[in-house]
Amino acid sequence: MNKTLVQNVTGTRDFYPEDFVLRDWLYQKMRKVSALFGYQEYDGPEIEYITLYADKTSEEILAEQVFTLKDRDDRTLVLRPELTPTFARLVAQKSQQLIQPIRWFMFGRGWRYEKPQKGRGREFFQWEINVLGPETPEADAEILAIAGTFFKEIGLTPDEVIIRVNDRSYFEGFITSLGIEKDKYMPLLRIIDRKEKVSQEEFDEMLFEQGLSDEQVEKLNAFFKDTDVTKAPWLSKVFAALDKYEGIRDYIVYDPIIARGFDYYTRTVFEAWDKTGGLKRSLFGGGRFDNLTATIGGDRIPGVGMAPGDMPIMEVLKQFNKLPDIRPQSAVALVTIFDESTKEVSLEIANTLRSVGIRTELWVEPGIKLEKQLKYADSKNIPYVIIIGPDEAKEKKVTLKDLQNRTQTQYTIDELLRLLQTK
Amino acid sequence: MNKTLVQNVTGTRDFYPEDFVLRDWLYQKMRKVSALFGYQEYDGPEIEYITLYADKTSEEILAEQVFTLKDRDDRTLVLRPELTPTFARLVAQKSQQLIQPIRWFMFGRGWRYEKPQKGRGREFFQWEINVLGPETPEADAEILAIAGTFFKEIGLTPDEVIIRVNDRSYFEGFITSLGIEKDKYMPLLRIIDRKEKVSQEEFDEMLFEQGLSDEQVEKLNAFFKDTDVTKAPWLSKVFAALDKYEGIRDYIVYDPIIARGFDYYTRTVFEAWDKTGGLKRSLFGGGRFDNLTATIGGDRIPGVGMAPGDMPIMEVLKQFNKLPDIRPQSAVALVTIFDESTKEVSLEIANTLRSVGIRTELWVEPGIKLEKQLKYADSKNIPYVIIIGPDEAKEKKVTLKDLQNRTQTQYTIDELLRLLQTK
Repeated sequence: MNKTLVQNVTGTRDFYPEDFVLRDWLYQKMRKVSALFGYQEYDGPEIEYITLYADKTSEEILAEQVFTLKDRDDRTLVLRPELTPTFARLVAQKSQQLIQPIRWFMFGRGWRYEKPQKGRGREFFQWEINVLGPETPEADAEILAIAGTFFKEIGLTPDEVIIRVNDRSYFEGFITSLGIEKDKYMPLLRIIDRKEKVSQEEFDEMLFEQGLSDEQVEKLNAFFKDTDVTKAPWLSKVFAALDKYEGIRDYIVYDPIIARGFDYYTRTVFEAWDKTGGLKRSLFGGGRFDNLTATIGGDRIPGVGMAPGDMPIMEVLKQFNKLPDIRPQSAVALVTIFDESTKEVSLEIANTLRSVGIRTELWVEPGIKLEKQLKYADSKNIPYVIIIGPDEAKEKKVTLKDLQNRTQTQYTIDELLRLLQTK
Repeated sequence: MNKTLVQNVTGTRDFYPEDFVLRDWLYQKMRKVSALFGYQEYDGPEIEYITLYADKTSEEILAEQVFTLKDRDDRTLVLRPELTPTFARLVAQKSQQLIQPIRWFMFGRGWRYEKPQKGRGREFFQWEINVLGPETPEADAEILAIAGTFFKEIGLTPDEVIIRVNDRSYFEGFITSLGIEKDKYMPLLRIIDRKEKVSQEEFDEMLFEQGLSDEQVEKLNAFFKDTDVTKAPWLSKVFAALDKYEGIRDYIVYDPIIARGFDYYTRTVFEAWDKTGGLKRSLFGGGRFDNLTATIGGDRIPGVGMAPGDMPIMEVLKQFNKLPDIRPQSAVALVTIFDESTKEVSLEIANTLRSVGIRTELWVEPGIKLEKQLKYADSKNIPYVIIIGPDEAKEKKVTLKDLQNRTQTQYTIDELLRLLQTK
């Protein structure tokens, strides 16, 4: 064929079995930690109406960062860029029936139209975990404890990763006390979100551009340096609760410069970072969103949650040499085909093995040399190979080759079943 | 709020925890059967270039049936309408490194822009399972055996479902023997695919429209009625192999009117049907596709597979009253909060329980009556509730309420851990 091979779409990933097994490992860790805290798994569609994420004025800005398409009624659909709005929609649609607190998690795909780079693609997976109902510091502490427990579970230590926590409403109170007007709150949050990417001079310049005075800029800078959490009433309660989670508290610090990008966060916000800074941005983030269900048209149900993505976490695990050494699960045994005359006996034996639950591959190409079949088993890490030649077929026996120990033994079918069922 | 609540996109589904648990049950069954036959799990992107599915001439027709979008270079992307081409692409891209046979499966999302109806939505899940490499009847038999084993596994009997198998190349040979030209092959397949939806007269009329003679139409109709598989050389070998799969053969019949929609099938094709005909179309289908990897620009690697979707299977299970009665997994225990003074002890105990792996929910809203907390545990099927009042906190004890037996006992923390770890 001279035709060019069709490629995958830029920024998407193929998961060959050896890649899939790693993603599944991460998913199972997320499931385990979620279940440990009593969260139940849910899922939603991967396409949503754009109105779930943006109002009329912000639609255009959003459309630049996401994948959009049109339905036949000319409504704009979006490949979901994040999972929290879908969660809010599900809750809002059944808010009368659902019993609070609502503790749900999911692991699903999202898309963003950004430049692909290390730890960031256009198609990614996120673990979305939220508790809805309680508007308490204890609820915020629980989500942070889940983040810490997850780090422990995947083998990342407080020497390697840190969760930096802030309180937007405490910041809002502080700027009000400086005499800064309310309408500067969101612009200032956006500037703070960029603080670590620019110099102190550039940062100050951005503040001055917002019309802040020398004194206000000075006081703001002092505020950002003050990491005494006891001054922040809500967060000090969050941290008091976290003190009770043994082995978790070390993962978490108060950091007044954490802002987060999403508009819907109302109070606690946090970001996880790797301490070497190798990733050059946060690993993931989360926070409290008390008005989100109301914003999309439902009742107001306060909540808090986070959404770790698979790509940055895998990058950091790789960086610290902590990716697990796992291979895709293989069959326990390969039943070979000796020749055409014994083919049907081989088929029968493979079926018998499966009928008692033994994972079995059957060679389905008669006429291929045994040597090639053995090589295949070896390459796929199948530990046992079963050979049935004409003599064995007559005696209702099989030869079992143990590829690890390089031994070879004859068994009856019953003996074979007993032996392999324990593997 | 007066704002209208944002809805989900038409033809998509929300999976609340009680829905998700059913989908996950189906997925785990598919995983189990796949592993039993030695297949390994993989995954691919959910957006692909349209050229993976269509050439220049068929692009427009395809675009009517699928969700398309444009990237910023004006290339057309498609939300994948089926999973087999993605599979073929993954194999073709690494055909030099991959050791054959390639036995892979996945469970993933697909989208089609069709009218939503019973057992059919615009967003669905499919179990894609294929073996690539062997061009043998035994390989075809294996895929059919997997389909039968899957039916057994989910509790559908040969009285309820049937897999109808045909051979496209046998049909092609037959029409050639009737003197019908090669270029009529695909048009005739499309007509046959509609045979059961039209009357005999309408069917004959469609054949006449293709320029067939009275005699050719008569002989074709006789061919469709002849279910003697021994006349079809390839299929008779497939069925001989299937005879060796105990308990599977009853699910499978030869049926010369099965055609399947996709162009890429080259030989064996099959469709699973529910015997009551309640669904009014096939449950799922599959077949042999020997040229697909070459069509998309890779080496020719013959293969066979199938792609059962979640929605029709769930419909048929419902129809036969065989949906499993399962609920989402809940925590083993709810740790309540008695009042502000005991809050921290409750936090500590919840953390201790989790540290030994006991799934534990913590009540995170101090100041709520115990009665409401108990009601919550009951509604979420949490079997045990832990109460720590001021006296218990002092004595380092807890009261354990067993919600099923309505009993209540005091324990030390160690006793509690020992008791709940076995649950």
